[in-house]
Amino acid sequence: MREEVLTMGKRARQAAHHMAKVGDVHKRKALEHMALNIEGAEAAIREANDKDIRAAVAKGLPAAKVDRLRLDAKVLEEMACGLKEVARLSDPVGEITRMWTRPNGLRVGRMRIPLGVIGIIYESRPNVTVDAAALCIKAGNAVILRGGSEAFHSNRCLADILRRSLVETGLPEDAVQLVGTTDREAVLDLLKLEECIDVMIPRGGEDLIRFVAENARMPVLKHYKGVCHVFVDDEADPDMAMRICMNAKVQRPGVCNAMETLLVHAGIAQRFLPPMAEAFRAAGVELRGCERTRRIVADCAQAVEEDWYAEYLDLILAIRVVNDMEEAIEHITRYGSQHTEAIVTGNFERAHRFLQEVQSSLVLVNASTRFNDGFQLGLGAEIGISTSRLHAFGPMGVEELTTTKFIALGNGQLRS
Amino acid sequence: MREEVLTMGKRARQAAHHMAKVGDVHKRKALEHMALNIEGAEAAIREANDKDIRAAVAKGLPAAKVDRLRLDAKVLEEMACGLKEVARLSDPVGEITRMWTRPNGLRVGRMRIPLGVIGIIYESRPNVTVDAAALCIKAGNAVILRGGSEAFHSNRCLADILRRSLVETGLPEDAVQLVGTTDREAVLDLLKLEECIDVMIPRGGEDLIRFVAENARMPVLKHYKGVCHVFVDDEADPDMAMRICMNAKVQRPGVCNAMETLLVHAGIAQRFLPPMAEAFRAAGVELRGCERTRRIVADCAQAVEEDWYAEYLDLILAIRVVNDMEEAIEHITRYGSQHTEAIVTGNFERAHRFLQEVQSSLVLVNASTRFNDGFQLGLGAEIGISTSRLHAFGPMGVEELTTTKFIALGNGQLRS
Repeated sequence: MREEVLTMGKRARQAAHHMAKVGDVHKRKALEHMALNIEGAEAAIREANDKDIRAAVAKGLPAAKVDRLRLDAKVLEEMACGLKEVARLSDPVGEITRMWTRPNGLRVGRMRIPLGVIGIIYESRPNVTVDAAALCIKAGNAVILRGGSEAFHSNRCLADILRRSLVETGLPEDAVQLVGTTDREAVLDLLKLEECIDVMIPRGGEDLIRFVAENARMPVLKHYKGVCHVFVDDEADPDMAMRICMNAKVQRPGVCNAMETLLVHAGIAQRFLPPMAEAFRAAGVELRGCERTRRIVADCAQAVEEDWYAEYLDLILAIRVVNDMEEAIEHITRYGSQHTEAIVTGNFERAHRFLQEVQSSLVLVNASTRFNDGFQLGLGAEIGISTSRLHAFGPMGVEELTTTKFIALGNGQLRS
Repeated sequence: MREEVLTMGKRARQAAHHMAKVGDVHKRKALEHMALNIEGAEAAIREANDKDIRAAVAKGLPAAKVDRLRLDAKVLEEMACGLKEVARLSDPVGEITRMWTRPNGLRVGRMRIPLGVIGIIYESRPNVTVDAAALCIKAGNAVILRGGSEAFHSNRCLADILRRSLVETGLPEDAVQLVGTTDREAVLDLLKLEECIDVMIPRGGEDLIRFVAENARMPVLKHYKGVCHVFVDDEADPDMAMRICMNAKVQRPGVCNAMETLLVHAGIAQRFLPPMAEAFRAAGVELRGCERTRRIVADCAQAVEEDWYAEYLDLILAIRVVNDMEEAIEHITRYGSQHTEAIVTGNFERAHRFLQEVQSSLVLVNASTRFNDGFQLGLGAEIGISTSRLHAFGPMGVEELTTTKFIALGNGQLRS
């Protein structure tokens, strides 16, 4: 296996050298061609997908998991649309982000270039195969994909279509490669290929991400959990605060940017919490409050220390009443995951300070935490959300799949 | 030990929360105060330094190594000047690098924030203690320093002065901490502190850097070797090319941005190489050439495969004659270290293509490779040169010790 993975790595490196020089017109054509080929291969894709589905059912996988594997007509159409959208994004490669002149006349600048070879290790959903590859290609990279065993046939079929599309548009097929086995050994081999893979992006459960982070020799862009907070200040518009909290908790509770803990200023708690709690209960949300919350909200369960750390990903909410914004920020700093926090307030000074002092990947004023997403923030697409601070912090779009090199234009400058 | 390192990590995290909120006036004052305190403590510093020097001599360290340990009046003055220069750099923290408005009216931007806690593991030179700490502080971070055993007393004395200066200017002393022992166990413990240290920067020999890269759980900003190339095109001005090559090789041969391999276009080799070789020999440079070079340059040694990979860090130069720029770029891609490459040419098209296609941390046209340095490129100061592509590629200044978070300003936006 080691040998096979090494060969893939070397091929990826070669392909990356080629891809770095490809112009945007050519990359757009390839991505649009991928979309056409996926639309044209619906029967073959669904046949491969059926194999995975049948195996998953036979293995006794829970229905929700089986469902996430399914490539029906709607998912395939979304895939093709996604490819066309990525094709239309503006090309980050070659952009000169800044340029300045030194006293000796040397003109120095920074130019955006692809990262090189990107490794993506993911579980379950086969659409990642297409979405992730598209973004890597757009940014001029080569990609090595290693999907989960449950989606093996689907991933294989999709990767073959992407590779064929590259060849048909005159690009190197090895710009997209899928690891041919699903055993864990292959993952370990990949994680040691620091000379061939410039960055590894794990996508999946916390176990997978920790495994990758602990074993990778190359840099890892990773996303642990999202314990997101909304702080309702005493100068908040209560109606706006209720709408934002409801949206942040209920609109899609199973995702990383959903609110998990609500912090309420003591000055508004008496007014705000009773109707808010009623609305949450009507929406089926289980509430777990601090002592002060329980004095205001009848029949609220007692929150224990673990609740403040919890990423429920479910219709459960922890609630705490705090004396002021300082206490709210302290709570966020202590228990939060640096993912997404929002303040609802009409007070300029506090909005300003919350924005400055809360060090999460997205900090919002008067808007729902659910906006922490590449599409929603205007990046066009995303390959994940980084909660570590190096290179990228927050949603990663096509630009985060590039880096910058320095360039210098001289007329004979020497160092003295 | 594990316990002591963990305590340092937690203190650093606390200090980092504080430092992130400190305004630039305050940070400047602290850095200028450090400079004053170093100037005022010359006797104590030299006393501590003498202990290290005596131990190094007793241990039989080579004279060059002993010399690098020495903190004489000149080095101390440079340290103080460095502190004042860093104090005057513009503060990157809080800068909003971009802002845009989404169709729903949400205003989204990116704001520069400190990285948090930075770990620096270094060898030998005690001035790193001061230079590195200053840059970390300026960028609003806390830093944990782990210096080499040879400079133990010097580092301890300097770190104490920095910590005292922080306290005297009302900042948390734990923004600068020095690991109190020099055993390797402590390094391993540090490398596992991913929850407390956001990034690790190793500075020293290749062994140290590999050890850190292989064992760190947090991201690492690292610098392997610099196998730097100059390509002399057939449309180069021969005099300019000679001056640039001489500067790149001879001005300071022992550093990472010195030229190690010279690539010469076949169309200019007959004219260019004989006087160039003569000039190199006059400067004491040993030449190792390819077959074609040896046909032009008398008494040139034969370069073998390893020479193309070599970082000599000495007055030795590998020379290869290539048919065209494509062959030069292929050579650089195959044997280079992505550090620094220069082209000397009067041809616009080739200059343009070389700039685009060579993927090194600094690519120059008509200037010496020796400019790959934070001061020379105008970053004000540097904490090292990164040859890996994530987060930073090339010299790292104060801005590279920050990251950006997303901010969003709304008036009640919800996700639908």
